[in-house]
Amino acid sequence: MRLAVIGAGAVGRSVVELAGEYGHEVVAVADSSSAVVADGTAGAGADGAVGVDPDAVVARKAERGIVGDDDPDDALAADYDVLVEATPTTLDDAEPGFSHVTRALERDRHAVLANKGPVAERFGDLRAAVADSDGEIRFEATVGGAIPAVSTVEDIEPGHVTAVRGVLNGTANFILTRMAAEGLDYDHVLAEAQDLGVAEADPSFDVDGTDAALKCVILANVLSFGAADDPADAREFTLADADVEGIRDVPGSALRLAAEDGRTVRLIGEATGDTVRVAPRLVPENGTLAVSGTQNIVQIETSHAGRLNISGRGAGGPETASAVLGDVGRLE
Amino acid sequence: MRLAVIGAGAVGRSVVELAGEYGHEVVAVADSSSAVVADGTAGAGADGAVGVDPDAVVARKAERGIVGDDDPDDALAADYDVLVEATPTTLDDAEPGFSHVTRALERDRHAVLANKGPVAERFGDLRAAVADSDGEIRFEATVGGAIPAVSTVEDIEPGHVTAVRGVLNGTANFILTRMAAEGLDYDHVLAEAQDLGVAEADPSFDVDGTDAALKCVILANVLSFGAADDPADAREFTLADADVEGIRDVPGSALRLAAEDGRTVRLIGEATGDTVRVAPRLVPENGTLAVSGTQNIVQIETSHAGRLNISGRGAGGPETASAVLGDVGRLE
Repeated sequence: MRLAVIGAGAVGRSVVELAGEYGHEVVAVADSSSAVVADGTAGAGADGAVGVDPDAVVARKAERGIVGDDDPDDALAADYDVLVEATPTTLDDAEPGFSHVTRALERDRHAVLANKGPVAERFGDLRAAVADSDGEIRFEATVGGAIPAVSTVEDIEPGHVTAVRGVLNGTANFILTRMAAEGLDYDHVLAEAQDLGVAEADPSFDVDGTDAALKCVILANVLSFGAADDPADAREFTLADADVEGIRDVPGSALRLAAEDGRTVRLIGEATGDTVRVAPRLVPENGTLAVSGTQNIVQIETSHAGRLNISGRGAGGPETASAVLGDVGRLE
Repeated sequence: MRLAVIGAGAVGRSVVELAGEYGHEVVAVADSSSAVVADGTAGAGADGAVGVDPDAVVARKAERGIVGDDDPDDALAADYDVLVEATPTTLDDAEPGFSHVTRALERDRHAVLANKGPVAERFGDLRAAVADSDGEIRFEATVGGAIPAVSTVEDIEPGHVTAVRGVLNGTANFILTRMAAEGLDYDHVLAEAQDLGVAEADPSFDVDGTDAALKCVILANVLSFGAADDPADAREFTLADADVEGIRDVPGSALRLAAEDGRTVRLIGEATGDTVRVAPRLVPENGTLAVSGTQNIVQIETSHAGRLNISGRGAGGPETASAVLGDVGRLE
């Protein structure tokens, strides 16, 4: 497939670097201020493949802060099969990601999202755009990095899934894991996580539960729209529908008390077709939900097959790019 | 899809019972001595659907030991879209399951297998039959019950999976779990497992590692054929290629010694594109591989996305039927 990769952060760059290994070709890359579009000869190999040179894109981004000398709009207009939306997640109108995806759909092209905004905040609008298009959307990379949460729910079929819950934010999980292991308070561990690059300078998106809530909102939309016979009957969720509590107020003493009882605290998100909740919860210390560090876990409760647990790396460039390229493979 | 279900044990019966919920229709069911084939009117509903009555099939099997008054061959000749092969696993020539599947492929119909024999013992012959057919085969139910091992490897793409390992036999795992928890010897716990119906009267298929080895052979075939550019270059595995050691000789003392060191013993199977091994191994007591009782777990090692762990119910009628019906959904 010919890919246009919009967004050149860790995920976008990894998609550019790995696409060839998965048998795909990158024909355009854009960041917010620049782009490179294959001119029909650049990178042409003996097999006639024509694409941008992945190494050159990554080098230009590192050295000059741009991906190429073209205009970002040229990448959106390029002749691709699949648009990969890997710009940063934005809330509310979810722009510019939402427009990138709908422009692809209007041209009857597919879109694969790593950007949570459009699927969390405007799922109904997206479904309507898909209904009018020959293109499809996929968004495995928006939930749990390398963990195949969305496609596993799709394979089981959303109507046979009663709930999905789990640990969906590695930063919050790293902080809770370290607080429990070292007996330290939140502020100490946050500073350590920031030094290690695990937490951002402004950590609120992770520690207030927003990121985990967006993932649960996406899962709730998958369950709700997937189970409805008519999309018009499906309930659409946005972040505003989520009941969210973060980890800032979890005292070190709570973790010490929990440990005396063989338990610990994890930031657990849960989605059903009716509700979305994220909050710190007590879980057994050696239990399935008590994944360590930056690991994520998803538990899928099914009608006929019991509970499935899937754990793995919930973030990271290559991990998330692997989910993006798995989605591209499903579109073939 | 119209299904012909061949085999009326726990899995076949569950497929018959659940198919309607997944939007499919059972048009024929066979066990080894009888069959029922929809006659074009039986079970016809207001929507024009024509199929066999699932409740009547299950009741006849329970009460009279037959599924209907037709000949088994009539079910194989019925007008179905997908043949579900759910007869007992047989080794070597993997008959009669192998012929059931190839008869479907010769008619350009799909086949979904719950029977491990054909995919473990004759994968190359099956691939050749698929190459000559418009039908496809799927076999998620042959590995790990409800756990989506095969489809997750397919989505990651076999060329990007370096190894798959895990606990793939619930009976052996139940015995090891009980031996460790109660400090009992193998013979005591085996007798208990037989009383509970977790182990068969002749438990050798499970406790000697054969069942786990077949699952690993299937995974090795998926990895080997999936990564090969040309199927002719793929290495084909059968049970004879597996290095297998069971749990009969694991002494209770070994579990007690392991426990003193925070470890326990699990029957671990591992497949790569080059090797298949099954043997009791020491694992951390609270680690990911130390699933309890009849749970199974699969660990998938990937080139770009780290390690994925998937655990859940590895056996059971509805659980395995759910995997079969997921495969049917992927064929649509």
